[in-house]
Order: sequence, then structure tokens, then C-alpha cells
Amino acid sequence: MKDQNKIPYKIYLEEKEMPKQYYNVKADMKKKPAPLLNPVSFKPMTAEELGKVFCDELVKQELDDTTAYIDIPQEIIDFYKMYRPAPLVRAYCLEEKLGTPAKIYYKFEGNNTSGSHKLNSAIAQAYYAKKQGLKGVTTETGAGQWGTALSMACAYLGLDCNVYMVKVSYEQKPFRREVMRTYGAKVTPSPSTTTQVGRKILEQHPGTTGSLGCAISEAVEAAVTRDGYRYVLGSVLSQVLLHQSIIGLETKTAMDKYGIKPDIIIGCAGGGSNLGGLISPFMGEKLRGEADYRFIAVEPASCPSLTRGKYAYDYCDTGMVCPLQKMYTLGSGFIPSANHAGGLRYHGMSSVLSELYDQGLMEARSVGQTEVFKAAEEFARVEGILPAPESSHAIKAAMDEAIKCKETGEEKTILFGLTGTGYFDLKAYENYNNGTMTDYVPTDMELQEGFESLPKVPECI
Amino acid sequence: MKDQNKIPYKIYLEEKEMPKQYYNVKADMKKKPAPLLNPVSFKPMTAEELGKVFCDELVKQELDDTTAYIDIPQEIIDFYKMYRPAPLVRAYCLEEKLGTPAKIYYKFEGNNTSGSHKLNSAIAQAYYAKKQGLKGVTTETGAGQWGTALSMACAYLGLDCNVYMVKVSYEQKPFRREVMRTYGAKVTPSPSTTTQVGRKILEQHPGTTGSLGCAISEAVEAAVTRDGYRYVLGSVLSQVLLHQSIIGLETKTAMDKYGIKPDIIIGCAGGGSNLGGLISPFMGEKLRGEADYRFIAVEPASCPSLTRGKYAYDYCDTGMVCPLQKMYTLGSGFIPSANHAGGLRYHGMSSVLSELYDQGLMEARSVGQTEVFKAAEEFARVEGILPAPESSHAIKAAMDEAIKCKETGEEKTILFGLTGTGYFDLKAYENYNNGTMTDYVPTDMELQEGFESLPKVPECI
Repeated sequence: MKDQNKIPYKIYLEEKEMPKQYYNVKADMKKKPAPLLNPVSFKPMTAEELGKVFCDELVKQELDDTTAYIDIPQEIIDFYKMYRPAPLVRAYCLEEKLGTPAKIYYKFEGNNTSGSHKLNSAIAQAYYAKKQGLKGVTTETGAGQWGTALSMACAYLGLDCNVYMVKVSYEQKPFRREVMRTYGAKVTPSPSTTTQVGRKILEQHPGTTGSLGCAISEAVEAAVTRDGYRYVLGSVLSQVLLHQSIIGLETKTAMDKYGIKPDIIIGCAGGGSNLGGLISPFMGEKLRGEADYRFIAVEPASCPSLTRGKYAYDYCDTGMVCPLQKMYTLGSGFIPSANHAGGLRYHGMSSVLSELYDQGLMEARSVGQTEVFKAAEEFARVEGILPAPESSHAIKAAMDEAIKCKETGEEKTILFGLTGTGYFDLKAYENYNNGTMTDYVPTDMELQEGFESLPKVPECI
Repeated sequence: MKDQNKIPYKIYLEEKEMPKQYYNVKADMKKKPAPLLNPVSFKPMTAEELGKVFCDELVKQELDDTTAYIDIPQEIIDFYKMYRPAPLVRAYCLEEKLGTPAKIYYKFEGNNTSGSHKLNSAIAQAYYAKKQGLKGVTTETGAGQWGTALSMACAYLGLDCNVYMVKVSYEQKPFRREVMRTYGAKVTPSPSTTTQVGRKILEQHPGTTGSLGCAISEAVEAAVTRDGYRYVLGSVLSQVLLHQSIIGLETKTAMDKYGIKPDIIIGCAGGGSNLGGLISPFMGEKLRGEADYRFIAVEPASCPSLTRGKYAYDYCDTGMVCPLQKMYTLGSGFIPSANHAGGLRYHGMSSVLSELYDQGLMEARSVGQTEVFKAAEEFARVEGILPAPESSHAIKAAMDEAIKCKETGEEKTILFGLTGTGYFDLKAYENYNNGTMTDYVPTDMELQEGFESLPKVPECI
């Protein structure tokens, strides 16, 4: 295999080479993302308003669009050392299998018990909560990746962790629930009788199996109505992209060390936490005019917020209690089909990535579920790792780009983010193996219905 | 934390530092393990006889007790580079939690999709089968770790992989089955109608949910009755310990690099593949009189082959088709209770480890299931990794030794093998979390029944 003597299969940074600061890409954006709005008054959210829901330090990070580098506290670095640096892998076997002249690299974030990159932000959010002297945090989880990551971080810091888990997942996916319980989290099936909003929903729909929107509303209520608690969220927010910048910073350090420059950088995109984190430092160079890269966001055809959504102010949750955010969105009323990539089943997109996309600095494409699993299987068989369905969207796009290189003879360097492993997604693989997987693409009329749920925000904002 | 500036959290060797030869501990043993016997004639198995069941090169390795170092073929090294070197981790957080002056290290073998160290031997066995020009291999699997590892190795090499999976696991643990299918393996619930022995058992016991013994018999029959197939086994055999010596060799290189010398080396013991692999190079030093170490094998109280078994010739399988091996055993007729550590539910023990234990070169102890899960949970919460139930036996013993050091004030260095992750063992964790886990210790009478199944081998052997 071509570069084997120069470039190892896996580039591991030494612990002393790990980033000591997060990078805030907003600082280098000339046109900044639009501010968060109060969902009732439509006025920009103040730090005081946000502070009722989120920790003070995280509010500061959320609103900061001028500080480029923010120190990572030593306690967080110590935690990172238990599972980071994450390897940057040269996909020698995949290259050989595809017969491509392209050089393919992936940053693998799955080597930890949460199984994904979510842990990078979970520990940061839990740390700031602890530092503020809080008793605990509340959150929601669907499939369970974020809930698992948060429960691990809270166990480490001795913080109370309350997870509202969508009832259907709680019952049908007991394994992630048990991981969370093993880490000491209190996992409540949502809707529950522990909150006002939960009780109301149960009254109105006695047999409901819940939804992510409902679980968010319960988690927010549980945080704001109890002393010593705040709400935390695993994606979409700017603070999450900030913490996830560690992915891109490590990647860039590893590539610089070996003199590698990527031509194309690819990531799957749900709420944007992984993609935003991976591309941040590279995008910074592009924004400052120091280098040029192609960035590709890959989303499921069943939930195409960038490729078919509208750039507008929208609710982040279906319960409409969170701040409004300007983003590419399908409308909070859009109900994504039961695609197996649960982490990409979100109606909107990070406001930072939305703004970068709107400025033409990033591309986006959507891919179908079956072709994604085909790519996942091919990848698993030659590269060993069984990828998460979410991550496999990036694999599919990377393979497509590598095949294009084969046709043109170009020796491009392709980098993609392998966000996690598929060990808790075997039901989806079973469907694929049995040939019973279906693809779903929403019709224009279905999208139109989603857009009708967009709030009527005055034009002057 | 005390040594943090000297010793990183995780020691990763560079790829060029990876072992290039396996180490065969038998070469340094003055008194060798007893030879394998033909189960009918009670005469030592010849290479020719063994060659009907196993690949030629593996037969050679199985019988070799004089060559200390055996080259690892480059193709196997290339595969290893996809998931090795495995990290040697300093358990700083566990030490702090326990308040012990002891220094605790663990070699973590779970960072690959098979989730355990089994892959180290799977790729070697598949490679030699491929090199011999075979079409494929057959094997059995209970919980599925070994079957998964073998299917990954076969997918990589383009070799046919037939796994006989105990029917009750096939039906109740569909996830490992789906991983194997994703890697292209043919997974057959055992007993099946595809073999004579399977049909016979189904006739006699129409509703049976199978057993490991039956699955072994089916896999062996499927190998010997078809052209171009051989049978492979994931533990117990000397060849497996040879391949697994990569665990100990990497560990020793990493420790030598930082000037660390372990006082106590601990591993869980089922068939012995992990423990044998981890301790081999250290045991070699002890056998050659170059250094001294304490070695501790940890087994479940429910299946105590070393601590309560007999050192005698016995069948390796309940179907009694495999060669006889002299080992510490509970008798092939002993039926272990449904302990959650499926990988340790084996009636016998590697003949190499049995002989070392018999010579007093190694200690053994047994631990109860509930105390093992308690240790697993404590470990997970501070060290991040959710351990496999099997590996947690070693964690429990390491913690006990560290607590002893706290009492005596001794600064011992403790090394243990963390063989894998518990991502497919969440049912067991659920039992533990719900407080419904039970402990089982066989009575002397139950053990006696097992011993009655031992073959009557003439004394002169």
C-alpha cells in the first residue's frame, strides 16, 4: 500500500500534543450567525434569560462571537485523556478495495463507551455545572447516545444526572438505558408524571409513546423548576460546536505533523455538532484566507434540512419552550420518518453551520438510507470498524468522492469524520441484512406542512 | 495524580514497535504440557490426525514446544495495525478512587468491533487457512465474541465463514448474530439439520435449545466432511495462546519503555487465551530465572476449574470428538450455571496454564458474580470504559490487591488484562442494576457428578 512507510495506519498524537484551547469559529466569521430570540417576545435572548436554563459559563460561551480561542480547563483535559487523543486513521484497506488514487483519512471518535463524539461536550457541560456549584443536570435522549455520554461525565464528576428518554426508546432499546443506569443516571420514560408538561400530555394522549420534543420540554421544566439544576443539550448550540472543535483541532495537528493537507472534508450532519467540530479549524483558515478546502455536509434524504429546508427563525424543540434560532430548518412541526440514523433525525441545523452554508462556504448533499448501509457494510468488512448509521452517511459521501477520483485519476486527499460505532444499532443492520430496509423521501407537500409550523417572526429582526 | 508527568494515561506503542514474532512459552518450560491424545485410542495425536481437523501450519504450532519465537507473517501484522497496538492504560482515576498507593495498569483489548482480544487469534487462524488454499473455516460460538472475531477476519481475507451458534443465543442474542452476518458469515442455529450429529440430537431432543458442546460437534463435522474446510477454535489450544502472546509482548515493550516492572499480573481465565497471552513473556522471564512475578488467574466461583477442578485428561468438548487434553477440569459433563460471563463458562483450562499452575508458578482464585459486577460498575464510573463481565473478574482481583496495598502501605505495581467491553452484555448489567442478580457456587456433589464424566485413560500415559 502506497504511503505505508511514511504514514502509519493510525496517527495518535501524544497527550502533550492535545489541544489546550477550544476554537470558536464564530470569531472569524465576518457575518455572524443571527442571535437567539425569546420565543414569546421575539427579542434577542439576554444572558440573564438564558441563565435560567443553562449554566452561566455556558451562556457566556453561547453568546461569545469574538473570542477565537477559549482555554480548556485542566479537569476537562484530564477526562479527555481517558479516551483521547482519538486516532486519525488512514483508510489504506478501503483505498485498496475501491482502487482509488485518492488518499482517505478518517477521524474516529467511537473508542469510548458512549460510542460517539458526544462525550466531548458532555464532560465540558457537566464540568461547568459542577463548577457553578449545581447539584445536577437534566437532558433528553432519543436513541441514547447523548444521554449515555452525559451520564458518564456526571458519574465521573459526582453530579446528579436526570435523563428523559423517549418512552418508545426506553422500552424498545433497553440497552442504552442500562448503560446510563450503570453510570448512575436517573432515566425517566417520557412523557412522565414527574412534570407538568408530561402530565398534561399524558392526559391528552393516554397511550402516547412520547417524542423528542416532549422529552426536551420535560427536561427543561425539570431544570428550571428545581433549585441547583440546569438543562444541557448535546447538539445544535454554538457552545456544543465549540467543545467539539477538539475533533478538528486534533485532526489538524495530526495532519500538520505528517504534512497532510485535505482537499475535501466530509461529515454527517444532524444538529451539526460533529460536522461543526471537525471543520472548525479548517473553516477558520478558509475564513481568514489562509487556505481553501471543500466542506461537504451529508444528511439523510428523509430529513434534508440543508438541502431542502428554509433558512429561517424556528423553534429548537417541538414543545416551543427553547429560544428561537435562525437556521436551515424543515419546521419544528416536521416529523422525520423512522430513519435508523436517530442522531440525524432533527428538523433544524446549527445556526453556525447554517450561516456558513448560506454564505456558500460549505456544500451539502443528501443520501438514502439503503445506500448508506451498503457503504457501512463495505467499510466494516475492510476497515474492521462497524460504523454507526449516522457516521455512515459520511462514509458514503467519502466513498463517492474517492470513486470520482478513480474516474478522473486525481490523487485527492479526503478526510471524513467517523463519529461513532454501531453496536447499539444492530436492529438496523438486521433490517439491511434481511433486505427489508426501506428508503423514504418526504414529498414537497409534506415539507410544506412542516414549513407551516414556522413562527411568524417580525421582518425587522 | 502522582506520576502524571512521567507516565501518560495511555501508553500507545508506535506501529514500528509492534512485536514481529509470537512468543511460545512452552519452549521455556522444563516440564512440558502433556501431549494431546486420540479420544478413542488414547495414543498421542499425530500431526496427520490433527491435520484433518486443523490447518497444517496451525497443527505445527500446536505441537511445537521447542521454538521460542515464531515470526508473525506481514499480512497478519498489517491486519493488527487496524486495531493495534492496544493501549496500556494507567488507571489513575481508579487509584485515586481507591486511595491506594498501588500503581494500577491495564492492557485494554476492547477497542475493536469484536469487542475483545479474540481477534488476535482469529486473524492468525484465518490467515493460515487462506494460505493453505482452503475455501473456508467452521467454528462454534456461544455468546458470540469468537464468532464475531472470526467473521471479521474472514471478511478481510475473503474466506468463507460458517458459525454454529448455540440456538438459545441465536434467538435471544440477535445482535452479535447480526454483526457476524454484516461481516458476511453464515450463522446457523445449533443443533441444525445441516449435520448428522445435529439431526441426531434434534431427533432425540426435538425441543432442545442447543449447547456449546453440540455446536462444537457440528462445526467439527462440517469441517471434516467438506473439501477445503477446517475447524478453528478460539481458546484452550496452545496455538491460541501463542497468537495471544501479542498482548503480553506489547505490554512488556510498553512497560520497559517507561521502566515499569509489574509485581502482580492478573487475568480472567475461562479457556485461558487472554491470561496465557498476557502472562507469556513475563512467565518466560520467570521460567528462565531472569525475573519474578506473581501471576493470578481469576475464575468465576460458578465454574472453578483451577481452584476446585482435577488435573486430568479430559474431552475438550461435550460431544467428545476433539482430542483429549490434560488440564484442570470439572469434567466435560459438568454443566456450568448460567453465569453472565459466557466466555468463562468452560469446564476445562488451557493445558499450558494448567501445567504452570500445577508447577506452582501461578496462583488462582475464584470470585462471585455479584461482587464482580460491583467492581465493574465502580471501574466504569471512574475509568469510563464499560467492561465485559469476563474482564471484570480481573478488575475485581486487581481492586482487591490494590486495597490490600492501602492497608499495608505497599506501593505495588499491579497489571491486569482488560479483555473487552460489555456492550453486548447489557442484559447482565440490567439484572445487576435491578438487584436481581444471583450467585451460584456448585456443591461438592455437583462437582463429583462432573468428575464422573472424565474418561478412563490408562495410567501409563
